[in-house]
Formats: sequence, structure tokens, C-alpha cells
Amino acid sequence: MEEKKERILTGHRPTGPRHIGHLAGTLTNWVRLQDTYECIFLVADLHVLTTDYQHPDQIYPHTLEVVADWLATGIDPERATLALQSAVPEHVQLCLLLSMLVTDARLHRVPTFKEQVQQLGLQPSLGLLTYPVLQAADILLYQASAVPVGEDQLPHLELARELARRFNQLYGEFFVEPEALLSEMPRLPGTDNRTMHTSYGNTIFLKDTPEETTRKVMGMYTDPTRLRATDPGHVEGNPVFTYLDTFDPDTAAVEELKERYRAGKVGDVEVKRYLAGVLNNALAPIRSRREEYIRQPERILSILESGSRRARTIASETLDEAARRMGLRVRFPLRAGNPS
Amino acid sequence: MEEKKERILTGHRPTGPRHIGHLAGTLTNWVRLQDTYECIFLVADLHVLTTDYQHPDQIYPHTLEVVADWLATGIDPERATLALQSAVPEHVQLCLLLSMLVTDARLHRVPTFKEQVQQLGLQPSLGLLTYPVLQAADILLYQASAVPVGEDQLPHLELARELARRFNQLYGEFFVEPEALLSEMPRLPGTDNRTMHTSYGNTIFLKDTPEETTRKVMGMYTDPTRLRATDPGHVEGNPVFTYLDTFDPDTAAVEELKERYRAGKVGDVEVKRYLAGVLNNALAPIRSRREEYIRQPERILSILESGSRRARTIASETLDEAARRMGLRVRFPLRAGNPS
Repeated sequence: MEEKKERILTGHRPTGPRHIGHLAGTLTNWVRLQDTYECIFLVADLHVLTTDYQHPDQIYPHTLEVVADWLATGIDPERATLALQSAVPEHVQLCLLLSMLVTDARLHRVPTFKEQVQQLGLQPSLGLLTYPVLQAADILLYQASAVPVGEDQLPHLELARELARRFNQLYGEFFVEPEALLSEMPRLPGTDNRTMHTSYGNTIFLKDTPEETTRKVMGMYTDPTRLRATDPGHVEGNPVFTYLDTFDPDTAAVEELKERYRAGKVGDVEVKRYLAGVLNNALAPIRSRREEYIRQPERILSILESGSRRARTIASETLDEAARRMGLRVRFPLRAGNPS
Repeated sequence: MEEKKERILTGHRPTGPRHIGHLAGTLTNWVRLQDTYECIFLVADLHVLTTDYQHPDQIYPHTLEVVADWLATGIDPERATLALQSAVPEHVQLCLLLSMLVTDARLHRVPTFKEQVQQLGLQPSLGLLTYPVLQAADILLYQASAVPVGEDQLPHLELARELARRFNQLYGEFFVEPEALLSEMPRLPGTDNRTMHTSYGNTIFLKDTPEETTRKVMGMYTDPTRLRATDPGHVEGNPVFTYLDTFDPDTAAVEELKERYRAGKVGDVEVKRYLAGVLNNALAPIRSRREEYIRQPERILSILESGSRRARTIASETLDEAARRMGLRVRFPLRAGNPS
């Protein structure tokens, strides 16, 4: 008898093509999780609107890019469910129900909200305030028992757990309280050693050509205290070595290079050339699969459509029961028998 | 060729059976509007949750009561559309889209929000803050050009108009900016001369028996300065005469009674007996139709189901186009051709 797998919900906002930070930080992990969990990967397009509602032309191409990158990395639509958030209206419906159970004041205390308000320097929208409640709905809708999150997402998961408890306390035990599945994956710095972020121009995209990749690597930040190749260099906090630690399967070669670097026996240029080779090797199979997918948008859309349909069979069941418990007992099409 | 009628959207929250205040203030007007407008009457069950989420058992029976009262009053499901808000997910979906276009701060300035926060003495929920945005979605979803509102609802309509303008400015002319259709109907005081409200126990319900109605009328507040039937009485601000003005088709008889009252030539008891007769006459046909409907919940549900289905054909078209303009261009089932 097949054992019932625990369910995981995770996803990305379609904000553009994925880069090696996503690969190292989440995608490699997701691909592995498919073996042990029932995975739902959500393209969270509604969440994009909270910050990017003024760029409507980007969401569709970005959706294709993100899914192509996922598939190229090894996300497998035969084993996992790839769903599009806006195609599963139950996300928004559950979000509205949950919005009755959380105070305005609580949401103003969410750290990511406060940060975003500061960053944007704008009056925050209702949509931005609602963001973590919609994210809670994303998770609770699938009764996901675990959510792979980075440290920065923990406050959102905490809110989802609070909402599950609040609902269960008011309407009887129903929602699974999701646990954090903290990733052990390293957070990759950008090529300039700041946080890697598309808007900083310090990323290497999965779709970059070998030439672009090499060019970006050759321009990387290394050890600023090292002026000549014969100076002893620092390996810690040096993104070139962080990338090598992450992407070079030949750990012995990396250790040897580090020793030579510390001893001032290898120049930056040689190390970067080596890294460019390592990265291009690692990315080659991903790039070619990606290229195949991106040439067939209808194939990507069809994967999203059947995934969204599969997601809805779970989502609509959860929503129906949640709505019923909150008193919304008339559900169409009318069922046989009394709705009360 | 049939002229295309303007569309109106209005509705009630299912908070309990309708009373004569609803009859005089809105229902009589709605029945008339059916002749000149394409009317959509919304049972706004999701809005109930903003304040009453802790009483889930009441929404279903209250929904039946409200619709039975509407039908009994003359709302005609053959001419008008009776829709259940929770059965048309597009309401919530459009609400989320609109939530990107309004600031948190703007919603904190909505007068009804401020009043409710004071009245409840509680931390307001996100749902309460979202209330007027969902109401804007209710209206804009049907491209309603007019909304029958009382003075107190004007700030909500103003927000709907703002949201329509904001959307049109960002994404091109699309939403109809709804106009207020200010009702000339009098606002009926309660039997104790305060605002009529179910929670004050000062209402006469459409479903009250003749005996209950008479009993309530006999206990009504009249002119507190009048101690004996021979004292000259005040007609203005005397709810007994307000009721007579509203419900007695025999205006001459009412005028005569007012003169005798002012002259101290008729006692309160006689006036009240007369009013009880007038009210029982006016309510008799409504009561009997109501009783027939309430005995057939499946008939009410079937009216709501076909109305909600009809509403969805309009709502889904509006939502699809609004979503497309905001960048959500993947709509399932996949259409022929490119979604961009």
C-alpha cells in the first residue's frame, strides 16, 4: 500500500527569470523535496500586483520564464503540481474569509510590511497589507503540513499558523497548522557581494549564455584587500569561493584552490576562469532544457492548466468546508439534501 | 427594438427578517425600479462576516428570510436578478484586484469604518477595513451605472467611483463610474422613535402576525408632552403619524386624524388602533406571500441559484477583462490564440 505523503506548498512570484541564487537557495531543494513530499509549486502572480501593479505587461512573460526555469531545473509536472494562483479563485476566497479573523493592527506589525513601506516610500495599499493573509490562504488551502521557507518568511508562516489556530478555535479543528521546513541551502551573494537581486544587476540568470556568464564572473567582486596575485587572499566572504563551494562538485579541487589563494599563489583571473567553467558546466543542461520549454509557451500553459485544475480539486474542497463552517452554507450547484 | 436598460446594483446583508423600515425605505422603491432598470439585487452574505463572524449559524436562515421578504414585497425573479454574493466568486476576485489601487490610509478615513470601530470597541479586522472595497467590487463588477443609496452610504459609493477612475486612469477606460440614485423614501423611525434597528427591539417585521403588529403599535411612542386625550397633540416627530403618512393610502383620512389630534379631539389609543388596522391591511398580502415562500426553501434557493448564475455571466466577463488589463493574461480554460 502506498503511504500517503505529507503535502508541501511553496512557490515564487513571477518577477522575472530565475537566477543562480534561486537555483542554489530554493530550486535544488524543491527538486529534492519532490521525492519525499507531495509538492504544490505556486506561481504567485496575484502577489506580484502588491508591488508591480503599474507594469501589467510583465506578468505574462515573467510567468512563462519562471515556469520554464522551474521545469529546466527538474521540477517534474508528472510528480508535482504546478499551479497558477490567479487561476485558482479559492485562494482569494479563502483570503477574504481569513481577513475576518485577523486585525488590521496585527498586519501593520508584520516586519516585511514595515520594510516594504519604508522601501517604497509610498502610502501602502490595502493589497500590500493583505499580502500575508493571501499567503496564509495559499498554504492553508492545501492543508500543507510543511512550507519550505527562508528566515525572512518566518513571520508570514507564523501568521498562517495563527490564522489556522484562530479558525480552529472558533469553528472547530479543521486547518492543519503548517510547520516551517527551514532550508539548509546557502544564501548566495550577488556578483558584487551584496544581496543577490534582479534589480541590483548582480545576478547570473539560468538563461544567460555561456559568454554572458563568463563575462559576469570575470567582473565579480573578490577580496578588496588583495592588490596583487602574490598577496595572500581571503576566501571567507569572497563570493567567488562561495559560488565554487555551491556549484563545484569537485570539493578537493576547490580546497586546493583555496589554499593557493590564501598563500598568494593564484591570481583572481585564474580563479574566475575556473569558476566560469564550473558554472557553465552546471548550467549547460538547465539552459538547453529551458530553451526547449521557452520555445513552447503552449506547453508551459498546458502544464499550468492541468496543474491548476488538480490544485482546484483540493482547494475547492477546503474552501467549501471552511465557508460552511463560517456560516456560508448555500453552495451552488445545489447539493441533494438540506444545506444546513 | 428593445431599448437597453441602465443597470442598477443594490442589496441587503442577510442580518435577519426585513421590517417595515426596510419596506418603506428600500423595498417599495426597489419594486418600482424594476420597471425602468435592469436590477441586480445582491444578498451580501460575505459582508455579514465583517461583524458577525462569530455567529455562523445565523447566515443561512437569515438568507432565506431576507429573500422571502424581498419576493413577498414584489421583487420579481423573472424581471430582476437575485444573486448570492458568496456564490459569485468574482466579487472577491475583483475586490483583491481593487485592493492594489487604494491605500490603507484612505480606508482608515471611511466614516462608517471609524463609526464601527467606535461602536464595536474592538480592534477592527482586515475584513472590516476591506468592506467598502468589496462593496465597490459588488457595484463595478456589473458595470452598474446607478446605485440606490441612503445618505449614510454615500462615502462608500464615493470610494467605488474613485476606484473606477483610478483603474481607468492606469489601465484605460473600462469601468462605469456609478452614480448615486438618492432615494426620496422617508427613513422610518422605530416604534420608540429612535432609529429603527433590529437590535433595538423597536421594529415591526414583515413576518409579524396581525396580533404582534397590533401589540407593537399599541406600545408605540407618541407625543410625550400630551398627558390626556383632550390635550392638543403634536403630529410632527410623532412616529404614529409618520407611519400613517407612509402606509395609509387614504391621505384625507390621515389629514382629518391629524387635525383632531392637534385639537385634542382624539386619544392616542384610537389613533393607534387605526394605525394597527392600516398596517395590518398593508402587510396582509405581503405576509401571505412570505409565508408561502418561507415554506419552500428549495424554491428560494433555486431562485438564488439561477440568479447567481445569471449574475456570473456578467461578472465573469467584467472580471476577465479587468484581470487582463492588470496583467493577468493567462485565463483557463485556454482560449484559442495567444493570451497576451
